[in-house]
Amino acid sequence: MDRRSFLRTSALGGGAAAATALAAPAYAQGKRTLTMVTTWGRGLAGVHDAAERAASSITAMTDGALTVDLKAAGELVGAFEVFDAVTAGQADMYHGADYYFVGQHPGYSFFTAVPFGMTAQELANWYYFGGGMELHDELGQIFGLKSFIGGNTGAQAGGWYNKEINGPEDFQGLKFRMPGLGGQALGKLGASVQNLPGSEVYQALASGAIDGTEWIGPWADEKAGFQEITKTYYTAGFHEPGAALSVATNREVFESLSPAHQKVIEIASAETHQWSLAQFLANNGTALQRLAASGVNVREFPDSVWDAFGAASQQVHEENLGDELYKKIYDSAMASMKASSSWIQASEGVYRAQRDRVLG
Amino acid sequence: MDRRSFLRTSALGGGAAAATALAAPAYAQGKRTLTMVTTWGRGLAGVHDAAERAASSITAMTDGALTVDLKAAGELVGAFEVFDAVTAGQADMYHGADYYFVGQHPGYSFFTAVPFGMTAQELANWYYFGGGMELHDELGQIFGLKSFIGGNTGAQAGGWYNKEINGPEDFQGLKFRMPGLGGQALGKLGASVQNLPGSEVYQALASGAIDGTEWIGPWADEKAGFQEITKTYYTAGFHEPGAALSVATNREVFESLSPAHQKVIEIASAETHQWSLAQFLANNGTALQRLAASGVNVREFPDSVWDAFGAASQQVHEENLGDELYKKIYDSAMASMKASSSWIQASEGVYRAQRDRVLG
Repeated sequence: MDRRSFLRTSALGGGAAAATALAAPAYAQGKRTLTMVTTWGRGLAGVHDAAERAASSITAMTDGALTVDLKAAGELVGAFEVFDAVTAGQADMYHGADYYFVGQHPGYSFFTAVPFGMTAQELANWYYFGGGMELHDELGQIFGLKSFIGGNTGAQAGGWYNKEINGPEDFQGLKFRMPGLGGQALGKLGASVQNLPGSEVYQALASGAIDGTEWIGPWADEKAGFQEITKTYYTAGFHEPGAALSVATNREVFESLSPAHQKVIEIASAETHQWSLAQFLANNGTALQRLAASGVNVREFPDSVWDAFGAASQQVHEENLGDELYKKIYDSAMASMKASSSWIQASEGVYRAQRDRVLG
Repeated sequence: MDRRSFLRTSALGGGAAAATALAAPAYAQGKRTLTMVTTWGRGLAGVHDAAERAASSITAMTDGALTVDLKAAGELVGAFEVFDAVTAGQADMYHGADYYFVGQHPGYSFFTAVPFGMTAQELANWYYFGGGMELHDELGQIFGLKSFIGGNTGAQAGGWYNKEINGPEDFQGLKFRMPGLGGQALGKLGASVQNLPGSEVYQALASGAIDGTEWIGPWADEKAGFQEITKTYYTAGFHEPGAALSVATNREVFESLSPAHQKVIEIASAETHQWSLAQFLANNGTALQRLAASGVNVREFPDSVWDAFGAASQQVHEENLGDELYKKIYDSAMASMKASSSWIQASEGVYRAQRDRVLG
């Protein structure tokens, strides 16, 4: 979408919002419609579901006093325009992956995922008890947003390839879709990295505009149909070890709401974080079995590739550490990750290994 | 607490609830106070916090239209009396660990934890997307409760011992506190197992009534002060790999609420499940470091002990499989666990191992 069509769509968005406000019945209790735009095509498995979950919980818990009107990508503004649309007040809220907005601020990466960063649980530990939520809010104050994480895909798959990856040199010249800092790291390995919204990936892959892609994991990837085009699938990836999604509300809109309704948005978003993660993880196992049964070559990257991922990821972080707020978020996230991962390994990690050993 | 004092306390509870109803201001919107009793002593780290989180979220999201009045264990009824108090309508809701109520039905075990069962994430996958919530409701229909999970401790520590455990024979004659099916399994190894509410464990340990105890994990255990008495601590345990807590509302009370308020209770409980898990996991790592620094001997059980735990756990499950509903829940939970754990290992498991290897 070019700049002109973005402005045209945005103007339409503003008009639609105004019309909604006029059309809203004037109940004594003040019913109010909030327009939520998203970075997801309508029906995109898991991610659009998470937007719907947050929207429907807010509407249901307030008995419609806050009615969230969900507009998928392209219905009001394009996927990557949601940030600007909400900061400008052309829509009230967005649901999306904040790492699409590293151009606005690289610190947003941490509220989706960073390469070699936190798992979904480590992220929740940091967000709710390690200062993450407050740092998300610090970014929101700059841009006029009130953001909460509201969805999580779990550890994302390494992705779809048209060949096996046997060493870091195999990324040289590969046209690959990967957003965020993970994509920047892959670029260090010589890949030609592209950032595309989810709903445009299949077509790009089918047309040969890209050679491969990561998207989410077996369930969402199967629904997107990537196995129809590429046949080599890597289960574990370095780039999004627990990718959060966010619910961001225009800050003036948020502050105009009652404390009870503000709390409804906060709790509905947090509940969606857990619900969404469970949805992905409950569906991925059987989806992977189906993919393997249909002839997909399911693999793990060799250690040499993981070493290269690690070095490139560290380089990308270092390039951003000059930004004071980025450094503040990075230091906070990494300290929290280190503190919480050791216990998870000593308790659940040991338990899982013993369960596998004993039950076979 | 004997039967007579339970009845006396219950009667007091009924009286207090009636007084509250009379005293409630008659707002046009119908403000209503719900009394929540708990299985936790006031201030018990993590678990009482979870009860408070659920109560305060419900109150805040409804702007007090539903005001939850939290009564800790002993303030209205004793810890283990909450189930009967809520089914009888003497209190409106309880927050507690449902495996305390295996006497009412052994199937309740699954809504806290069963030995060699699900981790917290596997439980969430099952509960929200594998039929777990519906089975919790099936139990609730029998007893007149509407239950939702509303807290999780994560994988619990193996616990506190007055000696090292070098083989299964070391459990012979050991007086140990462990509730639920895990405790029944430990009994098969010759331990003399006791079930005590959390607020009574320290005194029992200090007096020598028990030789050792499991409670939760480093953070809550340190706050309880067990390191003052016993000096050997096992980090990983077999008995509660992801122990959920529950919010259970008297079913008639729940059904008398508006759909919006029912949804508020449902979403607040689910959000508390995630919040509580993050609280435990964010605090356990540093607490374990403090315990180790203070001279606690931190250990892992040897394989021979895990093998014995596994065999005893299987025996306990088999003893219960004659109950039709228990079997239905067991089959559902185990199938879900198997399906979701394989993907978690192939994605997050591989990632964590590589992150540890690459970052050192």
